[in-house]
Amino acid sequence: MSGLSEETKALLQETATATLTAQLQRRGIPNTFFTGLSTGKPGHKMIGVAKTLRYVALREDLTAKYQAGNNAQRQAIESVGPGEVLVIECRMDPGAGTIGDILANRARMRGAVGVVTDGCVRDDAAVCGLPEFGVYRQAAHAATLGRRHMPFEIDRPITCAGVFVEPGDVIVGDDDGAMVIPIALVDEVAKDAYEQELGDMWAFERVSAGDNLDGIFPSVGKDRRAEFEAWRQAKGK
Amino acid sequence: MSGLSEETKALLQETATATLTAQLQRRGIPNTFFTGLSTGKPGHKMIGVAKTLRYVALREDLTAKYQAGNNAQRQAIESVGPGEVLVIECRMDPGAGTIGDILANRARMRGAVGVVTDGCVRDDAAVCGLPEFGVYRQAAHAATLGRRHMPFEIDRPITCAGVFVEPGDVIVGDDDGAMVIPIALVDEVAKDAYEQELGDMWAFERVSAGDNLDGIFPSVGKDRRAEFEAWRQAKGK
Amino acid sequence: MSGLSEETKALLQETATATLTAQLQRRGIPNTFFTGLSTGKPGHKMIGVAKTLRYVALREDLTAKYQAGNNAQRQAIESVGPGEVLVIECRMDPGAGTIGDILANRARMRGAVGVVTDGCVRDDAAVCGLPEFGVYRQAAHAATLGRRHMPFEIDRPITCAGVFVEPGDVIVGDDDGAMVIPIALVDEVAKDAYEQELGDMWAFERVSAGDNLDGIFPSVGKDRRAEFEAWRQAKGK
Amino acid sequence: MSGLSEETKALLQETATATLTAQLQRRGIPNTFFTGLSTGKPGHKMIGVAKTLRYVALREDLTAKYQAGNNAQRQAIESVGPGEVLVIECRMDPGAGTIGDILANRARMRGAVGVVTDGCVRDDAAVCGLPEFGVYRQAAHAATLGRRHMPFEIDRPITCAGVFVEPGDVIVGDDDGAMVIPIALVDEVAKDAYEQELGDMWAFERVSAGDNLDGIFPSVGKDRRAEFEAWRQAKGK
Amino acid sequence: MSGLSEETKALLQETATATLTAQLQRRGIPNTFFTGLSTGKPGHKMIGVAKTLRYVALREDLTAKYQAGNNAQRQAIESVGPGEVLVIECRMDPGAGTIGDILANRARMRGAVGVVTDGCVRDDAAVCGLPEFGVYRQAAHAATLGRRHMPFEIDRPITCAGVFVEPGDVIVGDDDGAMVIPIALVDEVAKDAYEQELGDMWAFERVSAGDNLDGIFPSVGKDRRAEFEAWRQAKGK
Amino acid sequence: MSGLSEETKALLQETATATLTAQLQRRGIPNTFFTGLSTGKPGHKMIGVAKTLRYVALREDLTAKYQAGNNAQRQAIESVGPGEVLVIECRMDPGAGTIGDILANRARMRGAVGVVTDGCVRDDAAVCGLPEFGVYRQAAHAATLGRRHMPFEIDRPITCAGVFVEPGDVIVGDDDGAMVIPIALVDEVAKDAYEQELGDMWAFERVSAGDNLDGIFPSVGKDRRAEFEAWRQAKGK
Repeated sequence: MSGLSEETKALLQETATATLTAQLQRRGIPNTFFTGLSTGKPGHKMIGVAKTLRYVALREDLTAKYQAGNNAQRQAIESVGPGEVLVIECRMDPGAGTIGDILANRARMRGAVGVVTDGCVRDDAAVCGLPEFGVYRQAAHAATLGRRHMPFEIDRPITCAGVFVEPGDVIVGDDDGAMVIPIALVDEVAKDAYEQELGDMWAFERVSAGDNLDGIFPSVGKDRRAEFEAWRQAKGK
Repeated sequence: MSGLSEETKALLQETATATLTAQLQRRGIPNTFFTGLSTGKPGHKMIGVAKTLRYVALREDLTAKYQAGNNAQRQAIESVGPGEVLVIECRMDPGAGTIGDILANRARMRGAVGVVTDGCVRDDAAVCGLPEFGVYRQAAHAATLGRRHMPFEIDRPITCAGVFVEPGDVIVGDDDGAMVIPIALVDEVAKDAYEQELGDMWAFERVSAGDNLDGIFPSVGKDRRAEFEAWRQAKGK
Repeated sequence: MSGLSEETKALLQETATATLTAQLQRRGIPNTFFTGLSTGKPGHKMIGVAKTLRYVALREDLTAKYQAGNNAQRQAIESVGPGEVLVIECRMDPGAGTIGDILANRARMRGAVGVVTDGCVRDDAAVCGLPEFGVYRQAAHAATLGRRHMPFEIDRPITCAGVFVEPGDVIVGDDDGAMVIPIALVDEVAKDAYEQELGDMWAFERVSAGDNLDGIFPSVGKDRRAEFEAWRQAKGK
Repeated sequence: MSGLSEETKALLQETATATLTAQLQRRGIPNTFFTGLSTGKPGHKMIGVAKTLRYVALREDLTAKYQAGNNAQRQAIESVGPGEVLVIECRMDPGAGTIGDILANRARMRGAVGVVTDGCVRDDAAVCGLPEFGVYRQAAHAATLGRRHMPFEIDRPITCAGVFVEPGDVIVGDDDGAMVIPIALVDEVAKDAYEQELGDMWAFERVSAGDNLDGIFPSVGKDRRAEFEAWRQAKGK
Repeated sequence: MSGLSEETKALLQETATATLTAQLQRRGIPNTFFTGLSTGKPGHKMIGVAKTLRYVALREDLTAKYQAGNNAQRQAIESVGPGEVLVIECRMDPGAGTIGDILANRARMRGAVGVVTDGCVRDDAAVCGLPEFGVYRQAAHAATLGRRHMPFEIDRPITCAGVFVEPGDVIVGDDDGAMVIPIALVDEVAKDAYEQELGDMWAFERVSAGDNLDGIFPSVGKDRRAEFEAWRQAKGK
Repeated sequence: MSGLSEETKALLQETATATLTAQLQRRGIPNTFFTGLSTGKPGHKMIGVAKTLRYVALREDLTAKYQAGNNAQRQAIESVGPGEVLVIECRMDPGAGTIGDILANRARMRGAVGVVTDGCVRDDAAVCGLPEFGVYRQAAHAATLGRRHMPFEIDRPITCAGVFVEPGDVIVGDDDGAMVIPIALVDEVAKDAYEQELGDMWAFERVSAGDNLDGIFPSVGKDRRAEFEAWRQAKGK
């Protein structure tokens, strides 16, 4: 059982990564967004718990040791659980695929909700086409893992796209990209982000109605508080 | 009132950035295209006048001075005018958003026709979804400005994506990307580009009809001049 | 007449670049995929024979010698033949277009089936819109060739996106990107890849049905052989 | 008269940039070191006050406006004062020199104590050979400014090598490279850094004598305080 | 006791990294040289056994957990043993120092013979000045570890500068840079490399005497074998 | 016999690459300096005529064809002539050496005066130690050519470090780096550069004597002409 409650998940569902990173930045934690990766599934929101997998650089004398048989990649796929996101470290190397359609599909069948890799994806269109499965990666690449990488270990902390991730941290992705939320902070961050999101929705509407930014952004001003609360009640939020 | 006339705007509407850069290259001005940025709005043509905004690198002891209150970003948004494109310099830093949906929407409501930033956009899908609003950027990024940048000044010359832009220069964007046209040259460049564009349209049609390149490209040859003029008249151009 | 037979072409039609690179990697040839380029035509499969074109860096005192008149770019376009893919070396320079819509259209009219360039494409949307014509490139860029390059020679070996290509090699592209297959190996690689592809299709289906990876991936296990063969026969493959 | 006192200067003379950056990091200011530049003068310590100069990207239609006559580069050289370091922003562009031997020599004759540029230096050996003059740059490059840049303005804030610098900030350089110290903090930072430096010197000596790190690093422990103070007194510091 | 015998060490002392990489390439192992790092100690030959240390990306909510007290960096320094080389993984991040003079000195006092880091070194001149201590790094950088990294673990495999290293592998460095030799292969590689080195020394002498490459390089030809053997005997090798 | 006369060579001996690039820039030819390479031989001036060698990317199925026997690298070394500089194209790939000490020594023995490679050098210290032999390269790297490259052809135009070079062009190197001078322009460029160099020497002296830049730099002013000419005569130049 992960530390991510259904209530928090529901709040995350309503909030953008743009809002969540802002909340973490306010708490002094700016290094949470996977810079350099993009979504392979526009319009999709991914929320899950990090299952980690680390690849290391290929060393040809050690492929038998690390690549053969029930290697770490295979272990990751066959042990990933419901609600988990597979997060892969491969040193931002763009020169090979790090997962393909069959393994991604198997992960999905086991309940995984997506993959984040700081390398590339093989069979990218097929992987991105898996239903209810988020995909964040540098690019597509047809080559297999073994061109650059050896699977090394699972379920230990990694650095993915410049962001440190511990197994069990929360991973959220939307059209802007994907990010980590420390599991210890996810409840409060989700709550505050949801509140901020409401303010932002109202601000966006007010701007569309012709208002200038005064008293509406970056936060609801004292003068406009009542107006905002009324809007909020009307929305039932 | 900007130096961009309605006549010239109409001509620019009919010409591609590929043609406009070619005209500027012929005049000895090759550094006009924002290399490394891509459109967030396929199929959209953006034409406007540059309103500039410059970000500088974050220095933590100076955030109160540059980031608080009515900072340069906010000033830019609340002073941008009809027909203007907000052009942002942020040193090609990919590690943070430089504008989000509420500010972009406010700019649009004031009449701005788009944004060009050599960094990233937050709430990218929402910004790209704003009607009649062009978006050119490196990528999407959820983090707020303050992760990397401080807003610094507006309405002064900048270097964006390797291209020098003075406020008042003309900015044109299409599916290839965006570029600057020096305001002093825009009338003649638009005229000549429009002429070249007609030749290119005819050439494209001729090639589709099976002709080889002789006498049709890169420019209409003497032998084919009459044929081209007839085509042109038939088109009413 | 190229060395690519209709039978082999038919097999390549049924196999992904992910499978083909895997076959070449098994044969000790990992450097075949054009890393850093992406398709401009999602969903399209491109198969052809390499026609090569090499650009060199612009040197201003030599433009008359290399750029004028019937230069190498023009020669390439007017000599490309049916079933060929134009493969362009431009040193991965992102700062200029390397082909535009008229020339690409002319190549297509002569029977070319696509273009692979390790630089950018002008009029990118138009080029990508050409029917039955694959496009693989770094990005779109409006500037003409002359901003960075001089056309130099055709029909000689080149290095494109880090991959060495000899004229006459086979070029295959799909949504993952494009790659080269040595002409000397294409028949056996296509056959083996087709076999592997069938196994992968079956594995994907089995995984979708709930099976774990044992005995189905990365290759069909002894225990599952009969089952796979039955599936295959049912499919008529 | 700058805000850099002789007392503080004397303290800075005794402290390494490694110690000064550490002091600023403790105060929550990590972005102060010019990453990517290296000293052209091993063994030299440079201390001065920032005189800023900003270059922008070359735009060929504007060279008459920005490059001719008494341009910003020339103004900077002829207005730099005693004890100042010329700090140049050129967008980390490695493709041209940004200062050469004659201008650097003139700056030195006016009392400047060094140059920091995030581009390259022409006549690099000669510039590095100027007595009592620090040089920090990316590399050497023979081309003149005009290959890539236009001089734009002086005496206004800039971003150099990713670090924001206001005119009047303190610049310190040694063999590790160069950095900025906010003028408002320089007195206290210099004092604390000097204290830390003494502790580090003692620690280095103790380690050379065979001690392990306990109680000596990263700071002097309670148990070793007396020992350290005795050492200090013996040194007369 | 490591697996590196004195006999093998003596052979490695006589062979260049250029020869050792060549021997490993012949055995199908090309990924052994730390690309992108340079020696801080020209003329020095470093031979040792890998002691590994891994840094991960800074995440501000976890600094107490990973950076405080007896962290992995400190553990590495206080457990490194005679004849070991400290090899540090920090994801090629150039934005901070990864070791400074006091810790390097302590490592040396414990018998370490050098450090290889794929990041930067603080107090670089002092570290490079430590007697009998090799230094291989990207560059100098004054900032402390905490600007970018958290120490994470020791004595487990790492990827440094693109090369996979297991604790206990042999590390050799000279003026070309540093490399890993798999411990399982070091004896035979050292022997064969020594033989090759002799041939190369002879070839270099012959070339200096005016011979062309025939029969002397890349290997001693049949015709010249006797001549080479005589030279060798005369040298007493 | 090359087109480089002894008279011109003597003039080039007295002029810096900084001056020579400036002369070419004035003639509208800014792309002549090998950006990204540095000298391995500080204080050395190299002047020679380009002998070209092109490497292509490794393709494992073609190594027998391009790497074995009397390959292009070997041909280049055994055909290079007196006064020539070996200029190597290897696509700026930093991942392997492109020449080592034995081959460089052999080239020198045949009269070559240096090597320029846009990759790395093996046995770098030994190559840089060859007397009267210039070395310009990205870095040192121990791996042999075959890790990344195949020798392909000699004596044809290449692009090295972004600069187009035809065999027979003049190559000049000093502490700033190396550059090409088109053979057709070398006589006039050398003459004009020599004149400019004299002016710069005088300007440097005047600045050292306390003069400001007026009338002395960037060129000798009318008022100071007589003074300069007197200085020149005194120098006997």
